[in-house]
Order: sequence, then C-alpha cells, then structure tokens
Amino acid sequence: MSSHQPPRPVRFGILGCASIARKLARAMLLAPGAAVAAVGSRSEEKARLFAADNGLDVATTRLHGTYEAVLDDPDVDVVYLPLPTSLHVRWATAAAARGKHLLLEKPTALCAADLDAILAACDAAGVQFMDSTMWMHHPRTAKMRELVDDKDAIGDIKVINSVFCFRANEDFLQNDIRVKPDLDALGALGDVGWYCIRAILWAVDYELPKTVIALRDPVKNQSGVLLACGATLYWADGKTATFSCSFLTNLTMDITLVGTNGTLHVTDFVIPYEEKSAEFSVASKSNFAQLHIGWDPLPSKHVVTTDLPQEALMVQELARLVQNIRDAGGKPEGKWPAITRKTQVVLDAVKTSIDKGSEPVEIAN
Amino acid sequence: MSSHQPPRPVRFGILGCASIARKLARAMLLAPGAAVAAVGSRSEEKARLFAADNGLDVATTRLHGTYEAVLDDPDVDVVYLPLPTSLHVRWATAAAARGKHLLLEKPTALCAADLDAILAACDAAGVQFMDSTMWMHHPRTAKMRELVDDKDAIGDIKVINSVFCFRANEDFLQNDIRVKPDLDALGALGDVGWYCIRAILWAVDYELPKTVIALRDPVKNQSGVLLACGATLYWADGKTATFSCSFLTNLTMDITLVGTNGTLHVTDFVIPYEEKSAEFSVASKSNFAQLHIGWDPLPSKHVVTTDLPQEALMVQELARLVQNIRDAGGKPEGKWPAITRKTQVVLDAVKTSIDKGSEPVEIAN
Repeated sequence: MSSHQPPRPVRFGILGCASIARKLARAMLLAPGAAVAAVGSRSEEKARLFAADNGLDVATTRLHGTYEAVLDDPDVDVVYLPLPTSLHVRWATAAAARGKHLLLEKPTALCAADLDAILAACDAAGVQFMDSTMWMHHPRTAKMRELVDDKDAIGDIKVINSVFCFRANEDFLQNDIRVKPDLDALGALGDVGWYCIRAILWAVDYELPKTVIALRDPVKNQSGVLLACGATLYWADGKTATFSCSFLTNLTMDITLVGTNGTLHVTDFVIPYEEKSAEFSVASKSNFAQLHIGWDPLPSKHVVTTDLPQEALMVQELARLVQNIRDAGGKPEGKWPAITRKTQVVLDAVKTSIDKGSEPVEIAN
Repeated sequence: MSSHQPPRPVRFGILGCASIARKLARAMLLAPGAAVAAVGSRSEEKARLFAADNGLDVATTRLHGTYEAVLDDPDVDVVYLPLPTSLHVRWATAAAARGKHLLLEKPTALCAADLDAILAACDAAGVQFMDSTMWMHHPRTAKMRELVDDKDAIGDIKVINSVFCFRANEDFLQNDIRVKPDLDALGALGDVGWYCIRAILWAVDYELPKTVIALRDPVKNQSGVLLACGATLYWADGKTATFSCSFLTNLTMDITLVGTNGTLHVTDFVIPYEEKSAEFSVASKSNFAQLHIGWDPLPSKHVVTTDLPQEALMVQELARLVQNIRDAGGKPEGKWPAITRKTQVVLDAVKTSIDKGSEPVEIAN
C-alpha cells in the first residue's frame, strides 16, 4: 500500500440496538477513518430496521440476527457494546477473545472485579479498550485541561463540585433498563454518577481519592435500584469533591473547580447545549473591586467550536488507535483502560458506602 | 407635619471605622431616607479621618472619640456595628438598651446563645434588628425568589450547592481580625460560610435542616481559627445542601439549585460582578434534543438592573422600617431577626460538627 493511499477505514460492529446506539451509528458515519460494518440484534429484522432508521446502507451493512454473529464477522474490527451492564462481562470478554477491539458503554461493569475480567481479556488479546464517555473527546475538554494544567490560571484545585441529573418520565422510571436490578443494577449512580466521578477524576488528573463517603438518604426504587445519590471524596492533600446524581431532577450537568488561583465553571459538560460550539468560564486571580463593589478582573468566557460532535471525535480517536494496531503493528493505548478502571474503582467505593449507610470507604492506592 | 412633607431621614451612627464601614458609609449617603449622623472610633481623629475619606460632611457629622458617645448621641436612630464579632454582644446590647435600632455586621455573634442575648435586648427595647447581609436586598435576589417560589419553574428543590471563598493575601492571613481567635473566632466559617448558609436557608424558604455534617479536613491556622471548611446539610424530606467556604482559594460565589423542574445558577451572589446589573441563569424543564445531541430548551439568562447598589437598598429598607417605628408607631419587622437566628443556629451546628470531627449534629425544630 502506497503511503499516499488513504488507510482502510476501521469497521465497527454494533452489538444491540439500544437507543444510545443510534447516536453512535451517526458518529460512526461522521467520523473520518471509521465505518459501520455490521449491526447485530436479537433478530435480523431488528438489525435491518435499526440500519434503515439510522442512515446505514442496508445493502452493504451486514445485518446479524445474533450477537455471536457480529463477533464472528471477519469484517468487524471494533465491537461497540451498548448492552445492559449486566451483560458486559460476557460479551466484552467474548469480543476480545475473537480479537475485536472494544468500545464499551458506561457504566463499564457492575463492579471493578468485573471490569478487570474485561480488561484482562483485552490485554490478553492485544486489543484496544475504550469506554464511551463522549465528553472526554470534545475539544472543549482539551481546552479546559490546558487551563487546569496551567498552575498560574487555576492553581491547586481544592474544591470540586459536579452534578449530573435528568428528570426521567414515568415510562423510564417503570421500564428503562437503568431502573432494573437484573440489567443496570447501579441505576443513577452507574448512568449519571459515572460522569460526575469521571469529571472529578479528570479534574485531579486521575489521582484516586483516599476516602469516599456517600451522601445520606439516597433514593432507591422498590427494587433497590438507585434513583438519586451522591458522595463526597477526600484526598490526602485536602482536596475535596462532592457530586450529586439523579433521575429525579431537572437536566443539570455541572463541573465547578475552585483552585488557589482560579475557578472554572461548566454547566453542560456531558452533552453541550449545542453541537458545534461549547462554552465554559474561568475566573482567574479574581479580586474585589475598590470598596468591594464588584469584581476585578471579571471572569472570562471561553468558546470552543467543533466541526464534528464529541461522539464522532471519540470514534475517530478510537479508529486511529485501532488502525495503528491493525495496520502498523502498534500497541493498545493504556491510558483509556486505566481511566476507566479508576472511575469504576471510585464508583465501587461510593456504592459500598451507600450500602453501609454512608460509612467512610478507604480506597487503596 | 403635613403628609406631603418628606419624612425626616433615619440617622445612622457608625460604630468603628472597619474597612467594611467605608462601603456602608457610601451606602448611607446613597440610600434615600437615610443619613449619617455620627461616626465613632477609638479616637476622634480616627473618626474625622474616616469621615473625610468617605465623603461625609465633617462639619455636620458628629465625630466621637468613643463608641459610648455614639450610643449616647440623641441624633443617632440606628447604630451600624462592624466591630469584631467578639465585641458584638457588648455593644449591640448596649445600643439596644439606649433605644438604638441595630444594623449588625455578620457573623452576628460567636454562637446562637450570644445572638439570643442581642435579640432579646432589641426585643425588650422595641428596636429593629437587621444583619448586614447585603445580597438579600438586591432586586436580583427578589427575582430569583420569584422563580424559586414558582413551583412550575424550579419545582421541589432537591440539591443545593454553595461556595464562597476568596484568596486572602499574606497580610490578611497574619493580621486580619478574621484570623484572630480573640476577635473573629469563627474565621472563614463566620465570614464567608455565613453567606453560604444564608443562601441555602434562603433557597429552602428558611426551613432548618435536620442534620448537619461538616466536611472532613477543615483547614485551621496555628491559633485554631478556620481558614477553610464546609458541610453537608440534610432535611427530613430528602433535600441536601453542600457548601464550601475558604480564605485560601480564588474568589468564588456560587449558588446552584437543582429542583424537580428546573435548575438555577448564580456565580456572583454575594457581590455581583458589576454594581448596576446582575445575572443568573435558569434551566427549566430541560430535555435532551433529538438523539441527545444537545439541549431543548436552552437555559435562559436573567438580567436584573438596579440604580442603587444592594447595600444602599439594604440601608433604605432598614431606614423604612425604622421610620415606621419612629414616626408612625409601627412595630419592628420580625422577619429579619428570625432569618439571622436560623443562620446562626446552622452555623453553630457546623462549628459543633467540625469540633467533633465531622460527627452528625442534629438541629431541633
């Protein structure tokens, strides 16, 4: 292959037609270097409907009536796995065993031990693992990272607050997989709390907290699945983070970072208000104006534009890593599974603290 | 006096030339219905310098070389008391005993029992009490109150976060009264935490929380005065609030309210970025856009303008109440001392929890 020829696209197989898969199918169509090779569902007809509904070429996309068939499809490089969390270990390890790279929906597992089984399978097979936490790939996140890393702008972060909640309707609260103990037993903690925990870890450059204490009075449904909860996280050096997550309150997606030199606010961190442009604000070295009648300087607003939505950038990044392995003898990038594992470890600790009535839970480093 | 004649202004006596008193002197000059009658300091010369520096008429303002003289001045209707907290009981009760109405700086007392002594003295004398929490009087606060009370816009509030901190310089951390155990023993909790607690109580219409648990690892100076701390507050119906306050991190003044129907954000609640205009944002009944690629509707920004700064509006409101008592036989407005007392009771509980190593502290209702 001449070096001027474009590389073969990385071909995704979609395992299950979950509603979130529609967003990912669109991302795979938009992302340079990626393509949808196959869709698998519990019937070929469902796969066909999904493909037709989501702009996939029904003539060229392979439509499979079982999940197994996707794993056996030699045209599939990467399996995208949006199945309920309770099915992740089974299908993710099976995919890795067939040599498929893996894009795994969050929460990635019911507990860190389960995730470890998945990561071990990926490791053994030499395949790339990435969880599907889209906001990590938005250029706004990279811009915020730059400012957080700039000790002059933000300084040492001392306080982090994160909220992610949305108001689920009655149908969701009765029927969604995220309220079913046999499907997504972590409920709101796994679904929306995942993002808060990731945001907090992101802010501290993935240093694990020392102690986790769940907020009191978590809300559970009749099956014991969490509908609303939260926790406070403590680091040895005095940093403190608090998060709240819920299916019961208005859509909110906040990260607030307070550092010695600066403060960062973002209020739509998981899914930006609009696709093409996203904002955040930073107040740095803020003082009171003379007589304390105002601020000087005022906070500044940062606007970051993007041609591709964050989920397409995620697919593009994964495709780049897979291509490097598939076509150039590269190794999997260890950063992504490492971040996933830390998120899951903290999530485990929060769950344990909740189960113990908000007792402190220590995290070993 | 004809009903068309403007009422006599309410005359303030400033007890002590603290730096915050400069802002209040300006407010008294700006506020309709108010006037500065007297300034008292530990020397007449200091009082004269303060008057001259702050635009007061040195010829007509009475300049007193003792605090006592202000209390004895028959031209003073209201005493504004910005002395260190440890002196509040002595001078506030003395002022009330002389029949002076009282504008008391926050924190109003070192503990609720001390505040009760002050409030009892005001009650016995039939004088108006108000604490000097300026943001309560900004028209933005009234506008936010309207939206919070509108159950359709915000619904039932479930989560409240508040942060107030500023980065004190070395001189402050060594010499300011707010780091001295014999002057302002409550440190950051009393100075900036006061506002967070007030904001939280304001948000829930002054319903006291049931349980208060301090965040771990509060920061204290060598004298044991708090430089940074926080707490989580719990209500019987499941509402939860968290606040952080500090002298060690960049200027930040947040209230975030998350309700079943809506979310409110304000990032300069204590002192608006600018004097004449202040903002906040509300997201109400926010949904994900189709495919979860954005929000629909977007949050809306509310801008509230004001001709007078919030501290002048505070002085004006107090003058109105005092005038009603002085000239029309009215009774003191009980709302203000009641709000102050609840703030101090919660502050006490946070302090107790801190002193007990973050043990839960119950608040009796």
